[in-house]
Amino acid sequence: MKLDDFLVEQWMNDYEGMAVHDLTSTCGQALTCRELLDLEPGILEDVELNYGSITGDPRLRSEILSLYQNQDPHTLTLAQGCLQANEMVMETVLEPGDEVIAYTPGYQQFYSYPEALGCQVHLLRLEPDSWSFPLDRTLELIETRPGIRMILMGHPSNPTGTFMKEEELSRLISACRAHGIWLFCDEVYFWPDSGLSVADLYEKGVATSSLSKLYGLAGLRSGWIKACPELIHAIDVRRDYTIISTGPLTDTLSYAALLHKEELLARVRKTVQKNTEIVKNWLQDNPLFSCSIEQDSLVAFLRYHKDISSADLARSLLRDTGIFFVPGSCFGLEHHLRLGLGTCHEDLKAVLEQLQTYVQTWEQVQ
Amino acid sequence: MKLDDFLVEQWMNDYEGMAVHDLTSTCGQALTCRELLDLEPGILEDVELNYGSITGDPRLRSEILSLYQNQDPHTLTLAQGCLQANEMVMETVLEPGDEVIAYTPGYQQFYSYPEALGCQVHLLRLEPDSWSFPLDRTLELIETRPGIRMILMGHPSNPTGTFMKEEELSRLISACRAHGIWLFCDEVYFWPDSGLSVADLYEKGVATSSLSKLYGLAGLRSGWIKACPELIHAIDVRRDYTIISTGPLTDTLSYAALLHKEELLARVRKTVQKNTEIVKNWLQDNPLFSCSIEQDSLVAFLRYHKDISSADLARSLLRDTGIFFVPGSCFGLEHHLRLGLGTCHEDLKAVLEQLQTYVQTWEQVQ
Repeated sequence: MKLDDFLVEQWMNDYEGMAVHDLTSTCGQALTCRELLDLEPGILEDVELNYGSITGDPRLRSEILSLYQNQDPHTLTLAQGCLQANEMVMETVLEPGDEVIAYTPGYQQFYSYPEALGCQVHLLRLEPDSWSFPLDRTLELIETRPGIRMILMGHPSNPTGTFMKEEELSRLISACRAHGIWLFCDEVYFWPDSGLSVADLYEKGVATSSLSKLYGLAGLRSGWIKACPELIHAIDVRRDYTIISTGPLTDTLSYAALLHKEELLARVRKTVQKNTEIVKNWLQDNPLFSCSIEQDSLVAFLRYHKDISSADLARSLLRDTGIFFVPGSCFGLEHHLRLGLGTCHEDLKAVLEQLQTYVQTWEQVQ
Repeated sequence: MKLDDFLVEQWMNDYEGMAVHDLTSTCGQALTCRELLDLEPGILEDVELNYGSITGDPRLRSEILSLYQNQDPHTLTLAQGCLQANEMVMETVLEPGDEVIAYTPGYQQFYSYPEALGCQVHLLRLEPDSWSFPLDRTLELIETRPGIRMILMGHPSNPTGTFMKEEELSRLISACRAHGIWLFCDEVYFWPDSGLSVADLYEKGVATSSLSKLYGLAGLRSGWIKACPELIHAIDVRRDYTIISTGPLTDTLSYAALLHKEELLARVRKTVQKNTEIVKNWLQDNPLFSCSIEQDSLVAFLRYHKDISSADLARSLLRDTGIFFVPGSCFGLEHHLRLGLGTCHEDLKAVLEQLQTYVQTWEQVQ
């Protein structure tokens, strides 16, 4: 299978190690193993390091199910992170020749992967600046292209943090239902207390998520898929060929984390809110930048109003100041930087000022 | 992508939980987390649960490389278990229309997965009873079918435990080299001190392995791929779409394990040797069964000389006695049971006698 390079991930691979001020990570501040183990002391001790339960530790499954309205165990399967969960969904459902709808700027997995599977991708542009989803254009495509099999959304979207409001989502679901289309939402940035998952709203709604972002536990590589039992069964067949199980180590620690989910979510939300306030104040005084930031969003797409290539800017910024961004070019749009809001910073205000000075004086420093 | 059910894994999923005497697991006896952590106390404490190094903890990579002659870091990438490593190799190299050679009885992933990718699979039968690889037939196919792109072997094979002797492997490599064919060996049952990996013997040799079997650490889901830098790079591109990283939790514990590899390997080898001796003595007195067992093999294919369906036998045996086997039917061959030799048993001799009585009196108990 021929796959395009995954631009954002390659950028992270190539440059993340040099970051002094990581302003681009979309994860909540990571816990250490000790911090996690202190939540449930001794929970790991007697765990046998065999394959464990193939379908996942029942205690973990039950905690994940409690995040949803429909708690039927047949509607859930586990994966090693949300990225893998996404791959499993796409690879199980999609066939060469299928048409799909995805959005840009967006997470490349949702269009490059279907392309690699031989699908025809209709890539729709989010509304500039507000980054709202183009509902009318989506509905029009659904009506006019009977080959459409799936709609793929980061929901909220990476890198914009935007999502469809309830009434819009409801209209989209009606159209999908009328045409038997799968609505696949990566909900890794979706706060469980912020509304209902697409998997609870629509019988052909597929939701994926993980502990990586809102819980600050990317290192567990713990993700899941929530969908109708028929799809979950089909994915489980495929899972036998790829992972066997997520394993008792990850399962046990993920269970421990979800026993304390309120605490962990509150911890990351507090950081996000603090960072967002600082960024918003900074934006008010700096017309060189603009950005629409959703409430409690871990990610936003920061625009700079100067004609510099985003990759050039991100590279030299990192080299000269240690400030790390993924450039908009990795998401198919220039003059932007992906801004992450979940990481703790010693002095975010000062770093943002340094960024501003750097961009303003760009020509001088080259 | 349409995939056949993975028979052996589904059997394990469906029945393993009921096992009292697991005679079929091919893993070395699993360590507990405590046993592993006691090897390197405190190693986990300060580990931050972020994505960690995308290409894997350099300390772990260095320990894995030390198992091979060629220790170029560009010849290695990490995966979440050997099964996933295998999938990554096949999915990266193979294209629809390619021809491949695989073997039966063998691990279904090596023929059903290429089939799902649209390849034509030449499935060759291992020599009955000795289960040696059919070298002449393989060479003949290589000479007559120019479309052959890859040879896939469990090496040693699951479920037979057999492998090519040095001189045979050398002849096979010469033929592969002459035709530019990839030689892909799953070496998860290959003792590192028993010879050279195919990745060290042949520039288009691809080896996969993990800590699941010989180290008794399946629960870490820690595997790897060893191949030429070009293939590793291509796999790493794909890896960005599927796992991002194996994560610092697994990486750190896998590193701890490999720091003590001699001890861990000796531990499993001792169990295997003890079990093998008991089985061999038992076989001598029981003509109802026969089995060729390789030295220090974690797996063998036990034949019973009675006309009973292997799935029926395995199911009722489990129900009536708690003795658990995967039936030969899961590997495409009747009248066999897969025998695992790495697990500790309280009284293997008594369990084998119970097995014998059960099979002898099969008709009465139905």
